[in-house]
Formats: sequence, structure tokens, C-alpha cells
Amino acid sequence: MKGILFDKKPTYKENLEKPIPNQNQSLIKVLIGAICNTDKEIIKGYKDFKGIMGHEFVGIVEESPNPELIGKYVVGEINENCGNCLYCKTNRPTHCINRKVLGIQNKNGCFSEYITLNTNLLHVLPNNLSPYKAIYTEPFAAAFEILSQIEIKENTNIAILGDGRLAYCIAQAFHSINKEVTVIGKHDNKLNLFNKIPTVTTTKQSTNDSFEIVIEATGSPSGITQAINIVRKKGTIVLKSTYAGDTTLPMTQVVVEEITIIGSRCGPFKPAIEALSREDIIFPEITLYNLKDYESAFNNNNFKSGFLINEF
Amino acid sequence: MKGILFDKKPTYKENLEKPIPNQNQSLIKVLIGAICNTDKEIIKGYKDFKGIMGHEFVGIVEESPNPELIGKYVVGEINENCGNCLYCKTNRPTHCINRKVLGIQNKNGCFSEYITLNTNLLHVLPNNLSPYKAIYTEPFAAAFEILSQIEIKENTNIAILGDGRLAYCIAQAFHSINKEVTVIGKHDNKLNLFNKIPTVTTTKQSTNDSFEIVIEATGSPSGITQAINIVRKKGTIVLKSTYAGDTTLPMTQVVVEEITIIGSRCGPFKPAIEALSREDIIFPEITLYNLKDYESAFNNNNFKSGFLINEF
Repeated sequence: MKGILFDKKPTYKENLEKPIPNQNQSLIKVLIGAICNTDKEIIKGYKDFKGIMGHEFVGIVEESPNPELIGKYVVGEINENCGNCLYCKTNRPTHCINRKVLGIQNKNGCFSEYITLNTNLLHVLPNNLSPYKAIYTEPFAAAFEILSQIEIKENTNIAILGDGRLAYCIAQAFHSINKEVTVIGKHDNKLNLFNKIPTVTTTKQSTNDSFEIVIEATGSPSGITQAINIVRKKGTIVLKSTYAGDTTLPMTQVVVEEITIIGSRCGPFKPAIEALSREDIIFPEITLYNLKDYESAFNNNNFKSGFLINEF
Repeated sequence: MKGILFDKKPTYKENLEKPIPNQNQSLIKVLIGAICNTDKEIIKGYKDFKGIMGHEFVGIVEESPNPELIGKYVVGEINENCGNCLYCKTNRPTHCINRKVLGIQNKNGCFSEYITLNTNLLHVLPNNLSPYKAIYTEPFAAAFEILSQIEIKENTNIAILGDGRLAYCIAQAFHSINKEVTVIGKHDNKLNLFNKIPTVTTTKQSTNDSFEIVIEATGSPSGITQAINIVRKKGTIVLKSTYAGDTTLPMTQVVVEEITIIGSRCGPFKPAIEALSREDIIFPEITLYNLKDYESAFNNNNFKSGFLINEF
């Protein structure tokens, strides 16, 4: 089958072996695969990954131990967990110590014609949700993780730091629960997109000691220090950005101001799919390439790019 | 009156002006003043403080708008707040933006014969609590702040990083609620003191990915990285140490492992006083000096040193 294999660098291949599902898995024909910043980090060496790239997909189930799934459009959670370790047994399956992660860790990803995935990780798309919009499920779910980690009281004011895709997913997640947020960015052209969300106020200014909750989604190490400055005493910072290397931070300020910092990663698919099905939750259209044009796809600076892998 | 004045360096003075309480304040004759690490930081330049040093004290009330307090042995919270700012109005008085802090910020401290303090900050000592033990109230209260910030479930295992005074106060706070903890230290002689607490296990080894809650009380910048390593995924780190300068940290690990980091500072006096009144909560005896021997007192490396300021 066709796919993009990573081994020190990405390469387009046409003779990859079609995967065979085990008894827990389904076989999925991939329709769309989307590029995430993590894929670009993998190209830089993140996790020393070797294998087929990609973890955001919409597909159609071809084989499954659950016959009701066959022929259905699906998206899938990306962490295959063991079920037996401490983390699996304490309801933290995405932190399973033996986990395989689609296109990221010890498991071939979705930039290929077929993938296998544990059947319990699949979510069938509602009829009114197009695959072109459903492709946002995985990053959008990561935004919903935040909502499960923080307590929002009536007068809690919230800032999102950053104006990229990650910040946009987070702004839409807060919009889905009708919660107003201030998006603090640097780029007029990017902020314009946020201005279409009715619950968002955008600004390029940040004022110290102003917000009860700050979501750090800049993708830059300097974002955390800015978050520490603009959050109020006893406030909460949610960290979403990841990057290579360490970060230098004023941690004594965190102690003296009794700030809480919460790391936030993968999130729940169910509320993300429900929200994506709503007409008022709008995402820019993904730009799609053929797999063999992977270099153009990786270099594309549109809001979202990816691959049209099988026709549908 | 006599006292230790700080102006770029500490000096012993005998001609300091006795303070006059305002309508909200009481006048307190200081019996014991204890030295805290923050005092040593002030000597190094922390907060650019100028004035009489010291914030941990036991005293006797001489004048007060509340006549019931007169003649009583008291300890006192250290943050005089304005009552009108955002933080005062949202139940965060210790973060008042106009606050004066005893011996730390815009307010003369307790290494002198008399202090004034807002009357609502005073706590009368129970009859069975000796001033020599009550002198631990302020640092012990800071340990109780942790108990108000974390959720301890039945199987939550807890580590305290550090084997100094701060760590000891924290270990005793957990002992007071009968919760077992592992104290991870470096010094046999210091760890021996912890071994007298029945709910404490001590060790010099730390194993990665082992504890649901880690309290960082090493007083060293490297403590946070160690805490990030030994805490479990989705676990919680409470930061107690403060020090000058920034800290370099693996924050991407915090995001990927969804770790929560909570800054923790001053705490509630009431549970600290209640616990100190118990016979099974034991603290080493404070070593007391005359005010004029302040250099010896500041250089003393016993568990706790301070000043016997007025006889009682």
C-alpha cells in the first residue's frame, strides 16, 4: 500500500505492507489524514520515531470484531493501552506505560491507505458530520481536555495565549460551552479568524495580573513566563504547548503567588464530536494533497493541511 | 526600644521608636522572635526590605480594641491586607495588592520589643501550648496550606522532597491527619529527626514515576526537576521552596504527563495551633539568643534559632 514512511526523514512508499488487525483491532481504510505540529516535531527527531507517520484521520471500517462498525465512517483515539499497568488500572489509559501511539510511538500511523486500531478507540461519525470537518476531532478533543481539568466559576475570566491552530481549537471548545474568552495573539491575520467566534475577544496587548485562568497555547517556551505574569494570584495556568528542550521560569513567583500550573494533553473524543456536529462550530477547510506530494503538504502554512488518501 | 534594623545589612539598635497602634491594631510585647529562611533571603536583598526584621513571633497583648485580648499570649498572621482590593474582595487576603507583611514588606517586624498588628490577625494560644512550641505556628501553618490545596484519596501515596525545617513542618502536618508520607532527603542526621514521626518513612533514594503527590521542600532549584521525575503521570507537585533567580525545567514533560504544579505559601493558623497543642506533634526546641547577638543567631545551624526578646 501507499504511505509516508519516516526513518530519519519522511519518504513516500508504494510497497508498504497492508496491516493485519489482531482480535481487538479493526482494519480501517484511511480517507483523510491530517498533519499536526507533532508530525513536524517527529521530522525533527521527536520520540526517535520510525514507521508510517500520522495520527489524525477519518476512515471507513473494513474489518472489525464489531460487525456494526463495518462500513461506518470513524475517527479514532490514538493511544492503544495495555489494560494491565498501574495507569490502565487507575483510569489513566492515555498514560499507559506500555502504550503504542498511532504514528508517534511504536505503531504505524495513518498517512497510508490502511491502519489497524483497537476497536474500543473508534468513534462512529454522526450522519450530519462531514469527514472534512471530523478531521479536526483529535486536536479538538485535546482542547476539551482543558474543560475537564479546570473549574470555571461564574466570574472566572479566561485568556488563551496564542493565535495558532491549537489556540483556535481551544477557543471553539470554550465557545461550545458558551464561555467568553480573551485571545491574546501577535498576528492580525490570524486573530481575524478568531473574531468570527461570537464568544471571543481578541487583543495584541497583555496586562499583568488580569486573568483567573490562562491557557498557554503559543507553542513557544516564552509563553509560560507570559502566562505566569498575566495570571492572577491563586490563578490557574493550563499548559498546552510542547517543544524540544527545557524552559527557564520564575518558579519562586509561582510559589509566592500560589499559582497552579496544569499540563494538558490528549482529550475526550465524545464532546469534541458532538460540538463539531454543531453548525455554529466552524473550522477552516483543510487543504488536501496526494501522499506523494508530502513535501508540499508539510511545508504548507495554511490553517490545516493533510492528505486525501482514499477517495470517498 | 531594642531591635534589629535592616538597611542593606542588619544592625542592633537600642533607640528604636516604640510603635503606636492604629484603631484596627493591637500593641504586642514580643516574647520570642524566630528566624526563618526568608530573613536570610532579606539579608541577601530579597524584596529590598528596609526596617525591623522578623515575622515569626509569640507575644503578649498590651493594648487592643478587643479588651478580651489584653494580657493574652498570642501568635499572629503576617499579612495586613487592605480589605478593598480585588484579592481582598475575593477571599484571597494574603494576596492583597496593598498588603504590608510583617518584617518583609512595608512593615516593621518582630525582632524588637514591640510590634503592632491588625487585631483580626491575632490568635490566642490555648493554655496547654507553650510559647516555645507556639513559635512554630507560622511555618507550621504554611505546611497546612498544602492540605487545603490537594485532594488525598485513599490510595494516594505522598513524598516530601527535602529534609530541612520546611519539610519537617510538612511531615508533621501530614502526621496530624494521620497520613503516611515518604521523606526523601540527603542527610542521615537530618533524616533521623523525621524517623521519630510514626507516619514517616525516610529514604535517600528516589525512584522515578512513583508518587501521586510530591511536596517540593528542598529549598533548591533542582528540587522541582526531581519532583517532575518522581511524580506519576497526572500526579500533583506542590512547590514550597523559594529562592532567588529563575529555574530551568522540562516543561514539555509536564504537558505530556499532564502533571499539576501548585505553588503554596502562607497557610491557616487555626489548624496549626490545634495540632501544635497535641502531645504527639513534637518539634525540636528553639535555640534563643539576645537581640544584640544577632550575628550568632543568624549563623546558627540548629533546627531553629531566634531571640528571647522580653522575659515572661
